Amino acid sequence: MIYKVKPNLEVILTPSLLPLYHLQDKIVVVIDILRATTSICVAFQTGVKEIIPISTPEECATFKAKGFLCAAERNAIKVEGFDMGNSPFEFSEPTLKGRSIAFTTTNGTKAIKLSQQSGATQIVIGSFLNLNFLCKWLISQEKEVVLLCAGWKDKVNLEDTLYAGAVIKNIKHHFQMDCDSGIMAESLFLVSENNLETIVRQSSHAKRFQKLNSKTDDVKFCLQMNTINLIPKMEGEYLTLGKGTYTSAVPVDSAS
Amino acid sequence: MIYKVKPNLEVILTPSLLPLYHLQDKIVVVIDILRATTSICVAFQTGVKEIIPISTPEECATFKAKGFLCAAERNAIKVEGFDMGNSPFEFSEPTLKGRSIAFTTTNGTKAIKLSQQSGATQIVIGSFLNLNFLCKWLISQEKEVVLLCAGWKDKVNLEDTLYAGAVIKNIKHHFQMDCDSGIMAESLFLVSENNLETIVRQSSHAKRFQKLNSKTDDVKFCLQMNTINLIPKMEGEYLTLGKGTYTSAVPVDSAS
Repeated sequence: MIYKVKPNLEVILTPSLLPLYHLQDKIVVVIDILRATTSICVAFQTGVKEIIPISTPEECATFKAKGFLCAAERNAIKVEGFDMGNSPFEFSEPTLKGRSIAFTTTNGTKAIKLSQQSGATQIVIGSFLNLNFLCKWLISQEKEVVLLCAGWKDKVNLEDTLYAGAVIKNIKHHFQMDCDSGIMAESLFLVSENNLETIVRQSSHAKRFQKLNSKTDDVKFCLQMNTINLIPKMEGEYLTLGKGTYTSAVPVDSAS
Repeated sequence: MIYKVKPNLEVILTPSLLPLYHLQDKIVVVIDILRATTSICVAFQTGVKEIIPISTPEECATFKAKGFLCAAERNAIKVEGFDMGNSPFEFSEPTLKGRSIAFTTTNGTKAIKLSQQSGATQIVIGSFLNLNFLCKWLISQEKEVVLLCAGWKDKVNLEDTLYAGAVIKNIKHHFQMDCDSGIMAESLFLVSENNLETIVRQSSHAKRFQKLNSKTDDVKFCLQMNTINLIPKMEGEYLTLGKGTYTSAVPVDSAS
């Protein structure tokens, strides 16, 4: 009888812990629930052609001359003079169809850049909106997976950890996990899943939004489950939908 | 009507995140449940005079000539040639009474040294054994508190996070906490507290012990609650019991 060895599954709770992990030859799922990776999923659902993650607003602004839309957020606020900030509502405008976007945020795009610098070769984007679609795909790949939480300014945050826990709950039987952060994340999700919005609104980042008195309820939007069946993926310097293997018109109800 | 501002309470899930936090003028509780901070509490209960935390086994060995007992552990194993390793059973030997110990471990003593280098001026030692006694004392101080988990080789671990959660459960009404790591730690403890040993035995570190086939059950020992009424504290380069304010013969049942 032959037993297949299950691939490893790990969680990195913040990019500041990246130096402790090996990313080579693994699928790295970058997670910034509030709001970068949610907005990226929405952008491709809207029909955006490609997104280039950029480190600084200064560099981001230079892409204007190349015909890009430029989106920049710092400390949860849109940077003045840019076309867009980091709200998923901005990324669902039909006028974005076919456009290229240069995008810089406090945590999410930084986590993408840092994981590239740490040797990641296969980077995909996770959000609650594409949760089950992503989970099914992760299982199908039979490769090692690292869930990288973008956190808040290098600190651990609640909503990204919760999402890591949601992924683990969905895919754990297909992986082996020798990772205390993973046990913690799943445990946190299991006690929160019926009450997700209330829990996330206690997070430091949700409190930051509350103070901004935004007209849109970005927290509620970012906690929608399985509304999108696609997986944005880094190809070179760009986020794209790749060669068509990362989208599906078929509704995805459950990954397990 | 005058409202008193409650002091802040924060959790640092691993020493690698220390650069993101300010420790000055705060009480830093160093936590290494398996096993350094448990063993330190046991040592003072046994009647040890003082413990000097040391960075390397090489430096630790030089204290032999000064009349110290020398204790060194790396990767959960006693370093060859030393008087003791890191098991709390070794620190409960009556022959230790009145002795000075030089102590180096993979995570716990390292966390103490790193918190000193990060500006901590008041460092105390936490374990499940002195949980309620420590919690009552923390409340009485009316100062900001940082719970520093020693983790495992700079990664987050389960047992130290659980302990941080136990402290938070006990003292939170006397503090304000704007810290996602703290919310996560408390949530983890609340779902685990009736099942603590089972949960901790799933941790990567407990699995490490299992492989060593030790004659003593260190995991079970380290999860005992409220058997010790003292708080080891750094005074200069030494852990001591200070000026008598950190011990009590009175049993402590609950901190809240």
